[in-house]
Amino acid sequence: MGARTDMTMDIEHVSQAKVFNGWHKQYRHSSLVLGCEMRFAIFLPSCATQDTPVPVLYWLSGLTCTDENFMQKAGAFRMAEELGIAIVAPDTSPRGESVPDDPDGAYDFGLGAGFYLNATQAPWSEHYHMYDYVVNELPALIEATFPVSSLRSISGHSMGGHGALTIGIKNADRYQSISAFSPITNPMKCPWGQKAFTNYLGPDQDTWKAYDACSLLESNGCALPILVDQGDSDGFLEEQLKPEHLQSAAGAAQAQLELRMQPGYDHSYFFIQSFIEDHLKFHAKYLTQGEG
Amino acid sequence: MGARTDMTMDIEHVSQAKVFNGWHKQYRHSSLVLGCEMRFAIFLPSCATQDTPVPVLYWLSGLTCTDENFMQKAGAFRMAEELGIAIVAPDTSPRGESVPDDPDGAYDFGLGAGFYLNATQAPWSEHYHMYDYVVNELPALIEATFPVSSLRSISGHSMGGHGALTIGIKNADRYQSISAFSPITNPMKCPWGQKAFTNYLGPDQDTWKAYDACSLLESNGCALPILVDQGDSDGFLEEQLKPEHLQSAAGAAQAQLELRMQPGYDHSYFFIQSFIEDHLKFHAKYLTQGEG
Repeated sequence: MGARTDMTMDIEHVSQAKVFNGWHKQYRHSSLVLGCEMRFAIFLPSCATQDTPVPVLYWLSGLTCTDENFMQKAGAFRMAEELGIAIVAPDTSPRGESVPDDPDGAYDFGLGAGFYLNATQAPWSEHYHMYDYVVNELPALIEATFPVSSLRSISGHSMGGHGALTIGIKNADRYQSISAFSPITNPMKCPWGQKAFTNYLGPDQDTWKAYDACSLLESNGCALPILVDQGDSDGFLEEQLKPEHLQSAAGAAQAQLELRMQPGYDHSYFFIQSFIEDHLKFHAKYLTQGEG
Repeated sequence: MGARTDMTMDIEHVSQAKVFNGWHKQYRHSSLVLGCEMRFAIFLPSCATQDTPVPVLYWLSGLTCTDENFMQKAGAFRMAEELGIAIVAPDTSPRGESVPDDPDGAYDFGLGAGFYLNATQAPWSEHYHMYDYVVNELPALIEATFPVSSLRSISGHSMGGHGALTIGIKNADRYQSISAFSPITNPMKCPWGQKAFTNYLGPDQDTWKAYDACSLLESNGCALPILVDQGDSDGFLEEQLKPEHLQSAAGAAQAQLELRMQPGYDHSYFFIQSFIEDHLKFHAKYLTQGEG
């Protein structure tokens, strides 16, 4: 491919479809920080032009997902078009034959389960750098390629809710607002997080704190507004998600957290589609009206 | 299983999720007319009770689909909840190991491709009776089981648009309104339809006319209002879908067809989600206000 003089040179268009007068598009590119080919998707509202760039909501998906789950199932585009917000959905881990996976093929670690961190332990440390990818490499590529501004917010579901919270809390200068559906709020204290952190980061739990939303609230506080929706019929609620831990940590840190327990809702995209428009309107307050 | 004294006895609950304050539910049941187990899905708005039964929109999906495609990807529930309309999505063919499939495993015939007709040719004629299933057996089961009225409308996509048009035109007494996205309007004159009809119905093309929307408009006319959306960037438009044939036939029959060509849209669920709310509002005029 020769010398990299322009990041946009490596981007390959995969698909596109018109939706709500805007466009859903998929691309593939060579990720330097992940050391593999990655696919991502973007929704561009019809008002996005070089002269009128739009802000971007980054969406981080949960375990087992790709860029497609949210884009196909969340029903977000009607409101994103109305509000004039682009949405970018990356994949949930590095991909490809050279990328190691859970030795047992489990769904909660390895491929589809990058946990939005930078792994320090072999063999994971060669490719699993989803934190750097989401925080730096992908936004730089997006902002160099599409008619978008550098105003960003971040949201996600489950493992992606953990990603949105931790990335947003650690990078209050790079995002306007944070939201999450059913996030893993305290991965140091739940089986999904303990498995991932032990493997990706090693046994020293002090290193885990840099990727735990509750620990980060305690150490950093959070200047950004946070909206969290959690279904009270979610089968993962008590063992894995623990929203009460987030609420305690946010209270102690005097962070602006609105946690909404939604009666009867589960962990699925049916839950997400029911409240995604609320989240888009929440982010729009900070992305399109100069607040925050 | 013993004597069938109550159709609801054979219905098995598979899944449920709250969505937009209503419920998405999947069930499995033994179909007499298809001779196999079938799964279907229903969305019930929160206002549906035994005292306040709601009308039903039947959605027929296209080639390769199950009950899940529309329910997961169409983004229909926000408006269905607002309008107080249930939605029922059957599968697209009989299913199971005893059901014959396309000998080459092609996507456009056999499993996932029942074409909403009653097959007359062996080996298809044993199970492939999707017309009777959709018109009679499934609504009887739905209306005996759920808090719904006998006010019905029908819609669908591609092969399911063909199903909605032909079933609605032939049963104007059973439905209030018809709509379709990207329907196969004239299956006698396109490769998908010719393959299916030759196999399911035999070579005598006179028998095909009972399942061809354009022929049915010519022979029956249509008393029901029809709304059709068709993307003009749909890759199947010219070879398979032929909306201009439907427009000619409807004109000659003085049927109430509104055909909307939608610039830039393709054949996908991104297209469907962009206009499904228009279709729900269209059907609501006839389902919930005593018109039609």
